Parts: sequence; structure tokens; C-alpha cells
Amino acid sequence: MTVGRNPELDPGHTAPGESRRPIGVFDSGVGGLTVVRALRQALPGEDIVYLGDTARVPYGSKSPRTVERYSLTCQQFLLDRGVKLVLIACNTASAQALPALVAASPVPVIGAVEPGADSALAASTAPRHLGVIGTLGTIRSGAYATAIAARDPSAKLAAVAAPLFVPLAEEGWVDDEVAAIVARRYLEPLFAQDPQIATIVLGCTHYPLLRNVIARVASELAGRPIAVIDSASAMAAAAKEILVAAGAPEPNQRAQAGRLDCFATDTSRLDELAPRFLGEPISGFELVDL
Amino acid sequence: MTVGRNPELDPGHTAPGESRRPIGVFDSGVGGLTVVRALRQALPGEDIVYLGDTARVPYGSKSPRTVERYSLTCQQFLLDRGVKLVLIACNTASAQALPALVAASPVPVIGAVEPGADSALAASTAPRHLGVIGTLGTIRSGAYATAIAARDPSAKLAAVAAPLFVPLAEEGWVDDEVAAIVARRYLEPLFAQDPQIATIVLGCTHYPLLRNVIARVASELAGRPIAVIDSASAMAAAAKEILVAAGAPEPNQRAQAGRLDCFATDTSRLDELAPRFLGEPISGFELVDL
Repeated sequence: MTVGRNPELDPGHTAPGESRRPIGVFDSGVGGLTVVRALRQALPGEDIVYLGDTARVPYGSKSPRTVERYSLTCQQFLLDRGVKLVLIACNTASAQALPALVAASPVPVIGAVEPGADSALAASTAPRHLGVIGTLGTIRSGAYATAIAARDPSAKLAAVAAPLFVPLAEEGWVDDEVAAIVARRYLEPLFAQDPQIATIVLGCTHYPLLRNVIARVASELAGRPIAVIDSASAMAAAAKEILVAAGAPEPNQRAQAGRLDCFATDTSRLDELAPRFLGEPISGFELVDL
Repeated sequence: MTVGRNPELDPGHTAPGESRRPIGVFDSGVGGLTVVRALRQALPGEDIVYLGDTARVPYGSKSPRTVERYSLTCQQFLLDRGVKLVLIACNTASAQALPALVAASPVPVIGAVEPGADSALAASTAPRHLGVIGTLGTIRSGAYATAIAARDPSAKLAAVAAPLFVPLAEEGWVDDEVAAIVARRYLEPLFAQDPQIATIVLGCTHYPLLRNVIARVASELAGRPIAVIDSASAMAAAAKEILVAAGAPEPNQRAQAGRLDCFATDTSRLDELAPRFLGEPISGFELVDL
């Protein structure tokens, strides 16, 4: 589990058990709402502040320098709202900016990569043959390879960048002819790297929308069922663990469901896109300039 | 032709015929290099400064407010480098930010939409049946419909947003099975709007890379040859017209080829992508923060 904390910055701030403060979640866009969805299931009483950097989305094709620069402004926006915990619901930002984000945060920071690696290990048995798909930035960083090797040095990991899955998810072409042909184009080279892959990690918070087609095409290519997992539930479990360890009340002891306040740097298409990722209607986004 | 000029801002600046000053070109990313390519053919002796806002690309899915905000910073960067003319090599910025850009510029500004409309009219005969494809922002703005109605009120214009063509061009999947199936997905509703379309306008500077597959699929759907045109040459012709009218020497009277200085807000993948759009090797991009 990736949890960073820099107590030198603001010791009075590091009290994630304090239940009235919200949990902060950010992503380059709306994909991170798949993490909010898991968080609301695991911790229904918690208030959440979500920020989507939709004016500068995507991060996945950009350089580590730009991703770090933008991620720091997103995190600071959440810290300014008094969050007790930060979830980086973007694999690219987690893969490329986690050390900088941890160094700049007085509260714990949970990335997407290490929970994803934990999920992959929990869903498989040794000898492990894993595949990961993600943005160019995530795959090039080697972050999944590092996280998985640290947990199981004998695991074999194949990796392919699948950049077109993000616009497909946003276009809503998630389980049709185009999605299937694109999935085949990316998964063939993945299985060419390792024909024994048994588990595929969705290393991008947009990809859970394409889970059905990815699982079906992968299973067709392999000739056997392939498990497809993502980081969202593992990130939510990590958040719950931190809050409980810090003395927060059990989530179901709260009478009311928590608030969800959503912010975005551009509001184009949010009414259409956001509910697909969150899995429920959304009351609206407040526009903010970063 | 869209040419704006705000002489109140800096009268001493408005001398586009002054040959030693460069021409400025900007785009949200690298697609605008298709315009630079046309410009270098039409005006080989001219120096060019190109800016790609690759850290914030794409503009096409974002709101007019964000597009205007980012476009103004791009144009100012060029003006600060003393350009004598600005070309907006991005249809989305042209469709949504032209008035603001013209108001803020002491030198002439050439957008992409009106030259595109001129090309469409030159390539067709009345009664005109035209189709335009572009980003969500460009199509929603109705800018092509306005520009074409102003030139030929009897022309019929069908329009479809084709957002996936941008990542396809960047992935290099420009004339294969995926490109063909995506082209069919966008062009079928275009021809459903008007089965008599004879000319398709590529309303995005990324799309010329997909010209072959778009022309082939369109001709298959129509059962007859379909002309596919873009704004790049018309924008270059508009630039030449302004310079010659302002007393610039004929372009071929210069002994040496002009310089091309390229700037970008993020340098990821530029070495790979830029030559595809420019059609020649490129000496490199200088990184700039906007």
C-alpha cells in the first residue's frame, strides 16, 4: 500500500481519524470517479471532495515534469479544503508524481499503483503471470513492474500502453465492434510478451468502463478465462484501513450518507460523462481555475 | 477569409510586409504542423515560430471558456516574439476564440474555419452538398455552418463530431482496420444527414493524416468519389495574400529557406509525432511554460 506522510509539514494536520474532515480525491479527469464509487461503498458516511483537472486532461500522454506540476496544483486545491487524506485516483499521476505529492502533503497520500499491485497479487497464485495495461506515462514509468517485483520477485509482468481506451471510454464506445477491435490490437502484443498471463490489471481509472470487452477479448486470445482487476476497491480499502487505525468511527456507525462535493477545471460534457464513471446521478460540478 | 486586426493596440506593430519578422502559428498540439507544411510550401523564405500547447492538448473536448483562455496565452507568446501575422492552426480555437484573439492582437489573425469554407466552395459546384467533421467544440460552435451560409446561402451542410480521429492520428493508426471502422462509424451518420454529400471538409488539423481512409470509406458509403479537403493550403494562401498586399517581397525572391523555430508546453512524444504532421524532419522543440 502506498501511503506517504510528511509530518514535518504540519503535524497538527495529520489526524485522519478526525471524522468531520473530508477525504480528498483527484484525477486528471472523470475516470477517478470509479475510485469515488468504491470509496462510497467502503466508507458510506465519509464526506468526499473530488477534483477533476478536466481543462488539462489527459495526463497519460504527457511528460513526468508536466504530470508532476499539474498533480501538485490538484493536491494543493484539496489540502486547501482541509482534507484528512488524499487519494490519487489517476494511475499516471501515481506512477510519475507520488514522491513529490507525498513530500508536499501533511496528510497521508494513497496512490493507485500499489493498491493495484496488491489486488493483482490477491487475485492470482504463484507462479504469477500478470499483464498490465495503462497510459503511455504509466507504462513507461515502470511503476507497476517495481511494485509487483517488490511483492513477488518471481512474478512475471507483461505491459502494454493502451492510450485509445481513454477516448473510447469517453465516447461511450465501451462494448461494441470498435472497442473489441481496439482491445484485440492492444491485447495481442500483451499475450505475445507472455502467453501464460492469467490476470490483467487495469492500470488506468478510465478502463473499468471497458472491463467487459477487455475480459472477453483477453479470454478469447488466451483460450481460457482471464481475471481483470483494477485498483479502485483496493484504494478504498487502504483509505478505510488508515481511518480505522487513526481511530475513526466505523463507517456504518454514521447515521447519514456522506456528502460528495465535485470540482472540475472545465465543465464540458461533465453532466454526460461523470455519471457513467460514478455509477449514480451526480449533483453537479463547481468550476475552478488552477 | 478570416483576418482580424486591432490597430488601436499597437499601430507600429501592424506592418506584416516587414520581411524580417516571423509568422506565428499556434495549435493545441502538433496537428497545426500540417498548416506549417503548407505555409513553407507557399512562402518558403519566411521565418516561422510555431507553438504547440501540448501540455494542455486537446482543446476539442473542452469548453469555449477554457479554449479562449488557453488560446489567448498561446497568441501572446507569439506576439511577444514579434510575429507579424498569427495563424490559428487549430479549428477548435478558431471556432471558439477568434473574436477574442483578434481583439487582443495588433497584427492580422488568420483562423482555420473561413479558409476551410473557402476551400470547400472552391472544390464544389452549386447546388452544394457539403459535410464537415471536426472536434466536439468545432462542431458544436456551428462556425462552419455560419461561414458556409455567408458564402453560399443555398449550400447544404451536414456536420458530425469525430473525436476519436485525433488519438488515432497520434497513435499512428491512420490507414488500417481500426481507422476504417472508426471512419465508418462517423461517416455513416454524416451521410444519413445528407446522402448527396459530394465534398467533406476536414475541420481539424489532425485529420489530414487520415485523409486516405476518410476518402475511401466516404466514397464506399456514397458509391461515388467524394472530395476531401482541408484548410491548410487555404490558410497559407491567405497568409501570402496579406504579406504581398503589405508589400512583402515575393517569397521566391529570398535566397535562403526560412527558419522554423518550434516551441511546446510539453515535449513528450514530439520527436515521434511532429515529423508525421510536418512531413519532414524537425530540428527540435524548445520547452516553454504558459
